[in-house]
Amino acid sequence: MGIKLSSSNYGKSRVRLVRITRGEEAHHLKDISVDIQVEGDFEEVHTHGDNRKVLPTDTMKNTVYALAAQRPVGEIEEFGVVLANYFLEHNPQVRNVRISMRERLWARIPVQGQPHPWAFVAARPERRTAMISATRAGQSTQAGIDDLLVLKSHESAFEGYIKDQYTTLPETRDRIFATVVKANWNYSRRDVPFSRTWEGIRGVLLESFAEHFSESVQQTLYVMAGAVLDAYGEVEAIRLSMPNKHHLPFDLEPLGLENRNEVFVPTDEPHGLIEAVVRRD
Amino acid sequence: MGIKLSSSNYGKSRVRLVRITRGEEAHHLKDISVDIQVEGDFEEVHTHGDNRKVLPTDTMKNTVYALAAQRPVGEIEEFGVVLANYFLEHNPQVRNVRISMRERLWARIPVQGQPHPWAFVAARPERRTAMISATRAGQSTQAGIDDLLVLKSHESAFEGYIKDQYTTLPETRDRIFATVVKANWNYSRRDVPFSRTWEGIRGVLLESFAEHFSESVQQTLYVMAGAVLDAYGEVEAIRLSMPNKHHLPFDLEPLGLENRNEVFVPTDEPHGLIEAVVRRD
Amino acid sequence: MGIKLSSSNYGKSRVRLVRITRGEEAHHLKDISVDIQVEGDFEEVHTHGDNRKVLPTDTMKNTVYALAAQRPVGEIEEFGVVLANYFLEHNPQVRNVRISMRERLWARIPVQGQPHPWAFVAARPERRTAMISATRAGQSTQAGIDDLLVLKSHESAFEGYIKDQYTTLPETRDRIFATVVKANWNYSRRDVPFSRTWEGIRGVLLESFAEHFSESVQQTLYVMAGAVLDAYGEVEAIRLSMPNKHHLPFDLEPLGLENRNEVFVPTDEPHGLIEAVVRRD
Amino acid sequence: MGIKLSSSNYGKSRVRLVRITRGEEAHHLKDISVDIQVEGDFEEVHTHGDNRKVLPTDTMKNTVYALAAQRPVGEIEEFGVVLANYFLEHNPQVRNVRISMRERLWARIPVQGQPHPWAFVAARPERRTAMISATRAGQSTQAGIDDLLVLKSHESAFEGYIKDQYTTLPETRDRIFATVVKANWNYSRRDVPFSRTWEGIRGVLLESFAEHFSESVQQTLYVMAGAVLDAYGEVEAIRLSMPNKHHLPFDLEPLGLENRNEVFVPTDEPHGLIEAVVRRD
Repeated sequence: MGIKLSSSNYGKSRVRLVRITRGEEAHHLKDISVDIQVEGDFEEVHTHGDNRKVLPTDTMKNTVYALAAQRPVGEIEEFGVVLANYFLEHNPQVRNVRISMRERLWARIPVQGQPHPWAFVAARPERRTAMISATRAGQSTQAGIDDLLVLKSHESAFEGYIKDQYTTLPETRDRIFATVVKANWNYSRRDVPFSRTWEGIRGVLLESFAEHFSESVQQTLYVMAGAVLDAYGEVEAIRLSMPNKHHLPFDLEPLGLENRNEVFVPTDEPHGLIEAVVRRD
Repeated sequence: MGIKLSSSNYGKSRVRLVRITRGEEAHHLKDISVDIQVEGDFEEVHTHGDNRKVLPTDTMKNTVYALAAQRPVGEIEEFGVVLANYFLEHNPQVRNVRISMRERLWARIPVQGQPHPWAFVAARPERRTAMISATRAGQSTQAGIDDLLVLKSHESAFEGYIKDQYTTLPETRDRIFATVVKANWNYSRRDVPFSRTWEGIRGVLLESFAEHFSESVQQTLYVMAGAVLDAYGEVEAIRLSMPNKHHLPFDLEPLGLENRNEVFVPTDEPHGLIEAVVRRD
Repeated sequence: MGIKLSSSNYGKSRVRLVRITRGEEAHHLKDISVDIQVEGDFEEVHTHGDNRKVLPTDTMKNTVYALAAQRPVGEIEEFGVVLANYFLEHNPQVRNVRISMRERLWARIPVQGQPHPWAFVAARPERRTAMISATRAGQSTQAGIDDLLVLKSHESAFEGYIKDQYTTLPETRDRIFATVVKANWNYSRRDVPFSRTWEGIRGVLLESFAEHFSESVQQTLYVMAGAVLDAYGEVEAIRLSMPNKHHLPFDLEPLGLENRNEVFVPTDEPHGLIEAVVRRD
Repeated sequence: MGIKLSSSNYGKSRVRLVRITRGEEAHHLKDISVDIQVEGDFEEVHTHGDNRKVLPTDTMKNTVYALAAQRPVGEIEEFGVVLANYFLEHNPQVRNVRISMRERLWARIPVQGQPHPWAFVAARPERRTAMISATRAGQSTQAGIDDLLVLKSHESAFEGYIKDQYTTLPETRDRIFATVVKANWNYSRRDVPFSRTWEGIRGVLLESFAEHFSESVQQTLYVMAGAVLDAYGEVEAIRLSMPNKHHLPFDLEPLGLENRNEVFVPTDEPHGLIEAVVRRD
């Protein structure tokens, strides 16, 4: 009985790129980290140490910088397609390519009320993401957001759940609800105004989180996903991953004081983790 | 056109447990972090905020401690099964459970050459891992290792690969090969002496890495996987994920010096990432 | 020849507090992490295991929550003084107290253009900090900012420096200058409008970074410090710590391309680190 | 009223070096990260942007690799002196230099019971450290250890401390004591067998932690420091920093179970932090 290669993939991770485009009036700054992964006809590489079909990951890295040098990077959803196409076109042994990107978002520094043309400050804790999956038969474009930390101090309840021998959690109509939203969504077409849509979806996620009376993280997740699908017809499906960043009311009773739902201990571990994919029917 | 829940899962992550078993001669220490995820009949939770089928993640956490209190934890592969079975048995609405565990490994502090009965020092940078996936129809047990950092300063080459317009990497017969091995393997049966087998597989991974002349990360990964499958008949398949922690020869020429393959800059980013699953044929 | 305790300090670190103040129109949210350190008459604790003068760090933690329960937290510079005074008043054995705080800054989620009364989003990557050092003779108040990431793509030079046998860095009149500012400053008086001043100083740091033509990180640091001292008479001295987050021009020449100062590799290590204290003369 | 530079320092941080020495029988591997900081006559750099006295941090980095190329690195305490002397000798404008180093410790991979000549595995979670502070008048050598995680499940008590209105911590004669030791010590002379002494001091720290009945972290810290000073006459003073990594007994009572001091929740925050310097009298 022998062994065989069941699946394999390889590539370069964390290729960091800052691309400055020096316009006449102002500079433009893109700050991204790129991960590349390919699959294909690489069996002999593994089984015989035959490197003839290996595009080195070092060359993948160089290619990111070379393509970024020949044109402005544009939207990450577009740059990802440029990269994926390049690798497919030049490497017949590659069957599919996945390009994942994380973008840090910068704002212009305001100087006397005016945005400065070439000085920037990191603007937001969250990251904009995109992932392109491509084969010769076609490609899919996924956009996303990561590390979007939100909290509501009202209109969040949790009750009516199962009680068993190990239940200690009290029911509540008014708890803190905090989470770090990670969202990914698929576009059904390519001609999307990516930046504007991304900002719009971010806004919808925030608004629906704020406005919704939450009976559970699960319900809120579904409402947020639904709001995005309602507002943006070009979104086919959306995946949300929402850790429950518990804020425990501090027990003041032993100190002779009362906690009027005001004093909380935020914790990182353990944490709930709620995930779902919601799509058009 | 409506929307629908396409898939969902939820649970508790990073439930940290230290379990001391106080034997007559010595204490025994287990130090683990547990992640629990379940899938099942949770559609109404999402769509209607109806929590009647929700086992709170807080109760999942309590259950970990309750079960750890009633018997010694034993091997993580065993404790994971105890947990998975508990959740399936008590929750008809749950279809499948996944229990993931990371264990920190401790050694007894040597005092005058003798291992101390109740004083410990963290022994190794790597982690032991396990994952149990269970449904009512059956379960699979996966064991693993994470963060196993290895380096060889000889018998690693990389040449004969594709050269294109963006190639700059020079071929070499003698480079540093460093990687942080992440491995996961499936057992075909349950009556495995888990600790002994885990230590054995760790040893086989290390030995095969050391002894093998590497033509590429891909080839070495395959050889390491094959060595495990050869040595341990109870392993059905093994997945290895091996980032290439590049060690770049520092360019001493501009300093008027020669680098005789002795002076290197270790880097964390960018890094190659090579992954594969190897299984019995 | 004996041994002696030369110095000692102890306390509690990372006491995380979220304090909600539920106003009629809107909720107010403070999210801080507190570190407490005390020094004093603790020799016997160390040398004899005599705990009679030990205020447990667990009680220090409780005290943070107890004091936060009895009044709104207010500015961190004020809450730090409340804490420091409490520990000094109740613990004659304590000679000095140091309270360090980090505050995460939140913004109200905008809903249809209006700030929501009780839903928040993490607003900025940087942190607001404060440190109170207090003895029975008096106290000093330090405010600060941490993790303020800025970048300018123009008007930064570095030339005219020492060249020796190990120099390879080319001189330049136009490099990227990126840094993560950490600043701490002392107030000469207590009746400062802390939030407004903090925002003002942040603005002055950003503006002076943006507007200044930089001949070196050192010079820019000094200009930024000077701008703060100029604008805010209540600031006695300011300390700036500015790592040089190098953005290396990617060498496109071997790829047959030209880098017109547009394509950069941002790096985390190694990094320059420039620090100074600037004060009134 | 003007402003003035009160103090300043600059240098390069996180210069990572792997140095392979290829002996006939075996390779030797040093894996270190170096931080360099200098102070001196740099006022004009700050105040006038005059770079004539600036040794660029890029050149500092090159110097690390250049000196590592010209001889085996040896002990970090020795390599630090080589670096410090180089910078002082070649830079009259520099008044003092501080070289800080962290070393990752590797072990040879055992192959059939024999240590492999050129294949290594990361051996320990802790780091070996050293710091050289040098002026033209002299220098001091500090060695150290960092991230040494230890735990004892017996012979640790905490009682007899202050009780006040905010006390909730119960007294105990048997708690878990876990800490991550950070230690630094000064050598009174230069001709110390650095590696052997470092291993010896590590052993003394571990043994005294294990054997000592602890009445408090403070007392144990003092005993550990004293044991090092007793055993190693060349150590003048030692600084220990010991966070109390609390292991909270999980409250099983509401679950209808008893915690017989067996089930614990290890926590990272908040944590106690106990620090002291102990020296010869």
